Amino acid sequence: MKKVLVAGGAGFLGSHLCDRLLNRSDIEKLIVVDNLWTGLEANILHIRDPRFQFVRSDVENLQTSDKFDEVYHLASPASPPWYMSEPKRTISANLIGAFRLLDLLKKGGRFCFTSSSEVYGDPLVSPQPESYKGQVDCTGPRSSYDESKRCTESLLFEMQRTQGLDVKIVRPFNVYGPRTRPDDGRAVSNFVSQALTGRPLTVYGDGMQSRSWGYVDDIIDGFARYFWMNDTDYRGPLNVGNDREISVLEVAQYVSRLMGGIPIVFEPSPPHDPTNRRPDLTNANYVMPEWSCSISYEEGVSRTLDWFRQEMDITAAQAESLQLAKTGR
Amino acid sequence: MKKVLVAGGAGFLGSHLCDRLLNRSDIEKLIVVDNLWTGLEANILHIRDPRFQFVRSDVENLQTSDKFDEVYHLASPASPPWYMSEPKRTISANLIGAFRLLDLLKKGGRFCFTSSSEVYGDPLVSPQPESYKGQVDCTGPRSSYDESKRCTESLLFEMQRTQGLDVKIVRPFNVYGPRTRPDDGRAVSNFVSQALTGRPLTVYGDGMQSRSWGYVDDIIDGFARYFWMNDTDYRGPLNVGNDREISVLEVAQYVSRLMGGIPIVFEPSPPHDPTNRRPDLTNANYVMPEWSCSISYEEGVSRTLDWFRQEMDITAAQAESLQLAKTGR
Repeated sequence: MKKVLVAGGAGFLGSHLCDRLLNRSDIEKLIVVDNLWTGLEANILHIRDPRFQFVRSDVENLQTSDKFDEVYHLASPASPPWYMSEPKRTISANLIGAFRLLDLLKKGGRFCFTSSSEVYGDPLVSPQPESYKGQVDCTGPRSSYDESKRCTESLLFEMQRTQGLDVKIVRPFNVYGPRTRPDDGRAVSNFVSQALTGRPLTVYGDGMQSRSWGYVDDIIDGFARYFWMNDTDYRGPLNVGNDREISVLEVAQYVSRLMGGIPIVFEPSPPHDPTNRRPDLTNANYVMPEWSCSISYEEGVSRTLDWFRQEMDITAAQAESLQLAKTGR
Repeated sequence: MKKVLVAGGAGFLGSHLCDRLLNRSDIEKLIVVDNLWTGLEANILHIRDPRFQFVRSDVENLQTSDKFDEVYHLASPASPPWYMSEPKRTISANLIGAFRLLDLLKKGGRFCFTSSSEVYGDPLVSPQPESYKGQVDCTGPRSSYDESKRCTESLLFEMQRTQGLDVKIVRPFNVYGPRTRPDDGRAVSNFVSQALTGRPLTVYGDGMQSRSWGYVDDIIDGFARYFWMNDTDYRGPLNVGNDREISVLEVAQYVSRLMGGIPIVFEPSPPHDPTNRRPDLTNANYVMPEWSCSISYEEGVSRTLDWFRQEMDITAAQAESLQLAKTGR
């Protein structure tokens, strides 16, 4: 029976990963450490499993006498407005977080890390294979995220090379879906939040920049398959994403149509916004041939819209009942 | 009057920088912190200045109640055999070291960091301007050094952008000269050590890989000018190197000739050895037009050879007198 630690487990990807982990019967204890900087307690409130425990703490400072068989490191903001406003904290979460988590891993245990397609920066090669060295400006305003993901990969791969550490590293591409923060700041959640509150949809730049939108269920399915695999000769890292490339404008237009023709407005691009991003899935297909992204962006965006609507209804109902209680009616 | 901290001040570059700092009359206290991993106490033994103090400690764990007006972060191994054998420690020294040093900087103080031309990886562009994003494999065996330099740059530039931190970052190119460790493992010190102990000179690969060899006096002169400059509009980072590109083989042949025709032997290349490296000095020429590398490689290599010979004589004399003392003669 295994003890498992998920850093960042109250976050968007982390909470979905916890749901998968709790389906496993070989786990006796699952601890989530999260400081709720970008994670939300609401993402794990549905978990009623006695094996599950939540610890509110920065991962760098986690106090525990436990050692873990599996450690999952997802403690990091992932959206540009969030990491650009607190870059030092972002680097600390990723990198000093990784040092702390290495101390908490049992000898022979497995260290799984969610890196990012951001390690490719603004790529000159498309699609991007894992061997592509990337084009990141290490002095630029997106660098805290990109470089701390790169440096944490380096730390772990070098521990693999010199110490034989069991390391699994994934590079997800533009994941979206339920449990994204409404104020996350990335395209799909922006469009959906705007649409549901009756505001026009904001497209930054001309909208022709493309992304490979990965619906969260598909991506987490890829993570789980790779993270829990024992018999692969592939040392990693592994791209996990949808290789269908869709422009930001197309997604906006789709949301607009779904919601009866909401207008789209254009604003200037944020700095260093990559013009394209698309995973080369050759290695993913080799390592886990039975896996693929099966949910189209139309289906995924619809589901995300439904989830956001439901959340807003719940929030509204809560506010109303609070109001009723206050006024004594 | 200023308090100054030099992390890695017993190292090759650090000790030369300390010599320059002690020429300044506006410094009341200069503390060197060094764990003597790759630094040598011998490099600072000649310093007799009452303002100077040496603290043997990892920079990450430096205990002091002082705050400093200027912090110089040079705490890192710089030679591939050293950092490749202890990558975790290398990342920690650079990056967690930088976090610790940020805590020790007075408000409004200046943070100077020696990054590296290694941030360019195996470059596809020559010469390399500071804006070149580089080609580093963040999963490879040189990555602990390259990526921790990149990520520390990111930390500091992002502190500059978000907090207005006064940051000066240099990227030196292949520095050599007196106070290199004999077992440093890089080309010039290897050749010189081999020549003085009567061994053939080892060239890795075909020797046609080129480097821009910077003699330490020239490079430290560049550091000092830039680090102590108050009135520049250039935010950094700054390439500091010699832009005369010389092949490894040419240097070996020169050392061989100087020593009366020592043979040269060839061995396989180490992994990911860059094929070329040469600074674009446009920014250096703009920022400090009066600076240039004035020492030719022939002159620099001769001086280095003389210094190593003298050191070996001293060591031999010490060993002999120890032997005499032991035998009672």
